[in-house]
Amino acid sequence: MAYLDNSATTVVCDAAVQEMVRVMTEVYGNPSSRHAMGLHAEQALAKAREQVAALVGGKAERVFFTSGGTEANNLAILGAAAAFRKPMAAITTALEHPSVAACFDELEKQGWAVTRLMPLADGTVSVQQVAEACTADTALVSIMAVNNETGARFDIAAMAEEVHAIAPQALFHTDCVQAAGKLPLKAERWDVDLLSVSSHKLHGPKGCGALYVKNKQKLRARQVGGGQENGLRSGTEALPAIVGFGAAAAAVAPFAEQQRHYERLKAVLCEELNDLPQVRWHLPPNGVPYIVNLSLVGHPSETVLNFLSGRGIYVSAGSACAKGNRSSVLKAMGLPSGEIDSSLRVSFCYGNSEDEVRALAEALREAATSLQGRRT
Amino acid sequence: MAYLDNSATTVVCDAAVQEMVRVMTEVYGNPSSRHAMGLHAEQALAKAREQVAALVGGKAERVFFTSGGTEANNLAILGAAAAFRKPMAAITTALEHPSVAACFDELEKQGWAVTRLMPLADGTVSVQQVAEACTADTALVSIMAVNNETGARFDIAAMAEEVHAIAPQALFHTDCVQAAGKLPLKAERWDVDLLSVSSHKLHGPKGCGALYVKNKQKLRARQVGGGQENGLRSGTEALPAIVGFGAAAAAVAPFAEQQRHYERLKAVLCEELNDLPQVRWHLPPNGVPYIVNLSLVGHPSETVLNFLSGRGIYVSAGSACAKGNRSSVLKAMGLPSGEIDSSLRVSFCYGNSEDEVRALAEALREAATSLQGRRT
Repeated sequence: MAYLDNSATTVVCDAAVQEMVRVMTEVYGNPSSRHAMGLHAEQALAKAREQVAALVGGKAERVFFTSGGTEANNLAILGAAAAFRKPMAAITTALEHPSVAACFDELEKQGWAVTRLMPLADGTVSVQQVAEACTADTALVSIMAVNNETGARFDIAAMAEEVHAIAPQALFHTDCVQAAGKLPLKAERWDVDLLSVSSHKLHGPKGCGALYVKNKQKLRARQVGGGQENGLRSGTEALPAIVGFGAAAAAVAPFAEQQRHYERLKAVLCEELNDLPQVRWHLPPNGVPYIVNLSLVGHPSETVLNFLSGRGIYVSAGSACAKGNRSSVLKAMGLPSGEIDSSLRVSFCYGNSEDEVRALAEALREAATSLQGRRT
Repeated sequence: MAYLDNSATTVVCDAAVQEMVRVMTEVYGNPSSRHAMGLHAEQALAKAREQVAALVGGKAERVFFTSGGTEANNLAILGAAAAFRKPMAAITTALEHPSVAACFDELEKQGWAVTRLMPLADGTVSVQQVAEACTADTALVSIMAVNNETGARFDIAAMAEEVHAIAPQALFHTDCVQAAGKLPLKAERWDVDLLSVSSHKLHGPKGCGALYVKNKQKLRARQVGGGQENGLRSGTEALPAIVGFGAAAAAVAPFAEQQRHYERLKAVLCEELNDLPQVRWHLPPNGVPYIVNLSLVGHPSETVLNFLSGRGIYVSAGSACAKGNRSSVLKAMGLPSGEIDSSLRVSFCYGNSEDEVRALAEALREAATSLQGRRT
């Protein structure tokens, strides 16, 4: 088996599973309970918060746990917008994850003026584009750190600096779901106000995420009740998932070693497939090496996915979240429809081997010759 | 050790832990992924949905997973209110959980006319009170099935019927968090539109809940993105927590046996403490036998909690969610402040033994004599 769909989700690491089982069977108190069982649960929560704070490069008291990346993005964007109390101007890109894009669709309905930056043909958005779109009236900016379909990287530190130079009061949010655990995040050092991460993209469990919030006063809570998470996110803390997230964050391999490994896997894939005439690579300059987007022109993604799946090899067509809809990211890049409809995303984790990548390449060669091709 | 704080949270059962470990290490695909790993995850999700549907007595396609009871209550009330698009009239009680009460505070700020029914001195709210508060203009009603602090039961079936007789278009929501797994729920048979449950109150993990929704069209999603949960709740499904919830729901012991067990435990507690002069019982007529609220007059709850905790016995002062604030529920019942400030909630699960209850009673006797009492 070769699981090469790690940008969709990952296997949960042993450290996370063990810690989760421990809190479910031994430290099962409610962190709000005022007895020893509650206190132990609260301590486990505090430890996980430190671990996730280290992951994002931020202070622990600025880390708020959510049910996942989607909730973190919704809280950041819709929570910030609600705190403004009236429609303002916002900037985002045409490449964001649906959990960000859908929030801006909502804001537009509420009267916000939303600018969606289109990428260059190589899938990137420049710092200059952001600076040009920004005015003194800009209230909210949301730009992802790494695109989930192409691996394009965005220079968040420089963008945040430009935005704050033009609009000092603007809130800068960055969705770091595809960067966390694989690239260093520096919430405090970058000039960002809000930063989202998700547990299940880095070998933690599904059902947990976190939002780094520089100034809690600038957000309105979206889930109300018992006042947990310092009033920003009510509801009994999802302790099993949270400690799993913390353990996974603490188990992240050194970034430099990871990058070398991904570069090697990517090089193997490119070598093995470079002479296949149907292959088109969609590799943005400065893209991350752990996401490789390619098309097997003439072969619809769905058909190839099924073919690979039958051989125990798992990749995706665009993002898992698009659920078979044509990728809006590749469309925004202006790719020909034949390439969009045959696009595949291969995404690595540190546990993947060169042999798994060779198995994928071999299966793709087989697909290219044996599957009924469709000329485009 | 005697964990008698099961209305705050429960230990996770073996069946749930095992199923969770299985999906985290073997069936770890993203249910939205279009390959075999995704399909297997989707099947695990569908199985859990059937299990939770059986728990609530509703059709599986009407069960929507959330991150917990708080999100389920928020989605029910704020999601329903948003779908009305303008302020309307609503009815609730003064006894609801903070995750319901806070939603109505929000609605009031938005211009809704909210009626909060006050309980009778015994902690109950009658069907007649609900009927009298209801008019043809009532748009939304939210009443809990079992109160989390006193165990008072509300006749949800009769209340929903009355409401719909007067206001056929009104949405009737019931927070069944303290009833689920211990009492039969009948979402389809009762005339309710929305029904909330939580995993961690019935030996599933924290971080998962569900909302039964009779007609999805009458709710607006509050978390937007990839369109999971049939568009009503975006975000990668929290599969570990969800299958844990499903397994815990499937492992619920027969209700009649549970009730007999709780009645016996309650009788033991009453017998053992009845001659203690400081004890006041707050036992609503028709209350559930698994929640026992009492006061040790003259001894602040916090002091007694600490005393018990030091002996490995865990109960709570009011609900875990009140976090040391004076109980608004006991206040609404008109109890004297001395009884409120010394109130304790003992809450059982099917795994508790008579010996554990006797250990609690003995420790309370000891507390009553050895602790520095405060006359009130």
